[in-house]
Amino acid sequence: MAHRHATVAVIGAGDFIGAAIARRFAAEGFIVFAGRRNGEKLAPLVDTIAAAGGRAEGRSLDARREEEINAFLQEAEATAPLAVCIFNVGANVSFPLLDTTERVFRKVWEMGCYGGFLAGREAARLMLPRGEGAIFFTGATASLRGAVGFSAFAAAKAGLRAMAQSAARELWPQNIHVAHLVIDAGVDTAWVRERLRAREGEAAVAALPPDRLMRPEAVGDAYWALYTQPRDAWTFEQEIRPYGERW
Amino acid sequence: MAHRHATVAVIGAGDFIGAAIARRFAAEGFIVFAGRRNGEKLAPLVDTIAAAGGRAEGRSLDARREEEINAFLQEAEATAPLAVCIFNVGANVSFPLLDTTERVFRKVWEMGCYGGFLAGREAARLMLPRGEGAIFFTGATASLRGAVGFSAFAAAKAGLRAMAQSAARELWPQNIHVAHLVIDAGVDTAWVRERLRAREGEAAVAALPPDRLMRPEAVGDAYWALYTQPRDAWTFEQEIRPYGERW
Amino acid sequence: MAHRHATVAVIGAGDFIGAAIARRFAAEGFIVFAGRRNGEKLAPLVDTIAAAGGRAEGRSLDARREEEINAFLQEAEATAPLAVCIFNVGANVSFPLLDTTERVFRKVWEMGCYGGFLAGREAARLMLPRGEGAIFFTGATASLRGAVGFSAFAAAKAGLRAMAQSAARELWPQNIHVAHLVIDAGVDTAWVRERLRAREGEAAVAALPPDRLMRPEAVGDAYWALYTQPRDAWTFEQEIRPYGERW
Amino acid sequence: MAHRHATVAVIGAGDFIGAAIARRFAAEGFIVFAGRRNGEKLAPLVDTIAAAGGRAEGRSLDARREEEINAFLQEAEATAPLAVCIFNVGANVSFPLLDTTERVFRKVWEMGCYGGFLAGREAARLMLPRGEGAIFFTGATASLRGAVGFSAFAAAKAGLRAMAQSAARELWPQNIHVAHLVIDAGVDTAWVRERLRAREGEAAVAALPPDRLMRPEAVGDAYWALYTQPRDAWTFEQEIRPYGERW
Repeated sequence: MAHRHATVAVIGAGDFIGAAIARRFAAEGFIVFAGRRNGEKLAPLVDTIAAAGGRAEGRSLDARREEEINAFLQEAEATAPLAVCIFNVGANVSFPLLDTTERVFRKVWEMGCYGGFLAGREAARLMLPRGEGAIFFTGATASLRGAVGFSAFAAAKAGLRAMAQSAARELWPQNIHVAHLVIDAGVDTAWVRERLRAREGEAAVAALPPDRLMRPEAVGDAYWALYTQPRDAWTFEQEIRPYGERW
Repeated sequence: MAHRHATVAVIGAGDFIGAAIARRFAAEGFIVFAGRRNGEKLAPLVDTIAAAGGRAEGRSLDARREEEINAFLQEAEATAPLAVCIFNVGANVSFPLLDTTERVFRKVWEMGCYGGFLAGREAARLMLPRGEGAIFFTGATASLRGAVGFSAFAAAKAGLRAMAQSAARELWPQNIHVAHLVIDAGVDTAWVRERLRAREGEAAVAALPPDRLMRPEAVGDAYWALYTQPRDAWTFEQEIRPYGERW
Repeated sequence: MAHRHATVAVIGAGDFIGAAIARRFAAEGFIVFAGRRNGEKLAPLVDTIAAAGGRAEGRSLDARREEEINAFLQEAEATAPLAVCIFNVGANVSFPLLDTTERVFRKVWEMGCYGGFLAGREAARLMLPRGEGAIFFTGATASLRGAVGFSAFAAAKAGLRAMAQSAARELWPQNIHVAHLVIDAGVDTAWVRERLRAREGEAAVAALPPDRLMRPEAVGDAYWALYTQPRDAWTFEQEIRPYGERW
Repeated sequence: MAHRHATVAVIGAGDFIGAAIARRFAAEGFIVFAGRRNGEKLAPLVDTIAAAGGRAEGRSLDARREEEINAFLQEAEATAPLAVCIFNVGANVSFPLLDTTERVFRKVWEMGCYGGFLAGREAARLMLPRGEGAIFFTGATASLRGAVGFSAFAAAKAGLRAMAQSAARELWPQNIHVAHLVIDAGVDTAWVRERLRAREGEAAVAALPPDRLMRPEAVGDAYWALYTQPRDAWTFEQEIRPYGERW
């Protein structure tokens, strides 16, 4: 493994997608800073990366708090230059419009959009003096269109996307690659399998064809592919979905 | 003028676009409920409508406060059935990403997106038992794409649009027409002319060809056209711009 | 009825949508020039309009032939200034990709896209010296996205849309209103009912809720609404669909 | 170099982008079948690939002729299984609408859209029995929106895109990866530099910052990245542009 004097920040480092992203960049020699609400849950990820010869730091982080985001990213930068910041906080909830409380609408936005703004802005602040870096945001189907039951989630994700697009237009010419990766899929997580089981029964879960759900590792690979794009051929937005997905 | 036992709520009833919408529906016989931050500024609008034989009520209203939105719409409904609710709050500010404070980002979202959610939800609650109504939202160029300097504004407007689209998919089958009117134009307001004057001088203002800016009345007409669509041919999103606009 | 010294050309004047457009503009006092492959089938439409006090001319017209399109529009212009040209040729066929012959792919394009180009270009040539006019194109769901079985149809409709958008950007500043009306619906025609009957049985047809299909008249109304937009608030693209449609 | 018993067909193998794609896949061990109007111009490409230890075949090919496309792809398949078919025919011309002859409109479509349909259909026919393969299409800015002067080009490119999207929805579930790569850039070709020189002078060409134009090699890399996507995370459409491009 090529060790690098550079850090990757993963904000929203959950057990599946976030962890896979962290492992992918760690495998390429980056020092990983992983943040999530309950930092103690990051111990297995940190251990896995260490066991593979890499380095990772896990931190408790509320992505909705400016001072926490700033401190988190500044610590990463103080360790080694922040090469990549990936905002991966999910906030996927579904309620009929009339049952969407103001508290839900606000919280989903704070997690799904506002936190991304805070992370992107602070990452840019750290990267701009060095004239390079990458700031990536995880999107979802709801980033591109509203749907029944997704007033809150779609509003947050579409807001994140528009913020990212504005940031891209501002930062690309300064050599900061801002991108938005849209996961139009069920990702193969415990939660997705559980939901499928509840809805369609154990047989449906057992009958899932290979690669019908997206492996978390595929998201890590997709981010790595974005990161390694040469700057004369950058992508802002990329949608990924399994071959068997309907779209 | 055909008087109707029905109300139209205009939330964000500014001196130009909002007032024109109010006048248009008043001219069709609707009772207008107009709300804006400083309700006392609504006196000229209320007087104009009254002088033309119509009826309007002006109210102070902070669209970011759930209890104020609810009370405002409930008062309209108590007066006569709420036929139309138009959310027209603007929040157009521009800052470079690094100069966008968390306070600005949040406030622009509260005005531009969250208030729209509150209004749409409460209007739906009032309309659904009667099985009819129209809920309209005013969009802008930034609703559809981010741009340099518009991280906050685009995030809010794209969020509003996604919320509206979700609401449309949920409410259309229940005979509530939800639509999003995108104004891709400079509207002929004191503020736009002032900005043009500051940027390009008095001569540029004087040289404006006829209809190069959009008259506020044209927005009122566009909303009226949406409202009068038959339900077998509803539009969710409509962009309007002057013939001479670049797009 | 206000008689006008102006013509409306409807290219693709079928028994349902095209005829409804023709009747709508005839009712507003325009002289209608209606064209379709078998002009003799236009007799009932011409008679209906005449009986209502209007004037219509029916012509046989192959929209894929430059000289026929030009002659048709020039005859309209010679009768009275061509105010509106509406290209409404349908070409809705569905085949799996491997069963789409080169002949089908080409013919669908000639009818759905190429004919629209010919009509739009000749209408523009006639209107530009007078500095006003409207050129409208009928789109479909497939104009906006491809779908299984629609390689040929989607390619033609997306091509028509892109041509219309290019034309709009070129002609709007010269006061020619180019627009694209997307019908995202089953329209209530004999063919649509027959297809539904074949697929789901007579009961399904009988159980159709009111306004679940789009009445052809609604398309005529939508075109009229586009035509009457003031030039400081023109729309390029408008989607219409019934309240009960899934989208 | 890992030699593979598999072929890549590049249709529209011009001196810059097409050649770079061919070299990229040849470097990965694929046997390249390259086609262009004047096949004799492919000699340098074939020699370059051979000198690097690869294998390429150059053929004269009119992509607008069904029998030629079929024979070309069948020869590739007969040599080794056709793993990838890349349709890269350009047809970039610009004319004002009124100066766009029917001959230009038709020819641009035949090259830019119809040829892509023929290639995609025949490639699918060859790949489906083997249950795997990739079919890629090169898009341009005009694939996504019309523009002044691009009635013909945008119609062709948007048509190609819609055909590709339809094919993707049909073929992905059968394990054929169909994708559309949108090059939103000036590519660093002799023609682009010449055009820039003509428009802005030699100084402008000399002053081009590094990576301001897209290197043809970057397109080859982008196609390789698409090809190596795992099937649980396929992309249909990817836009690439240089960091300094305005969009």
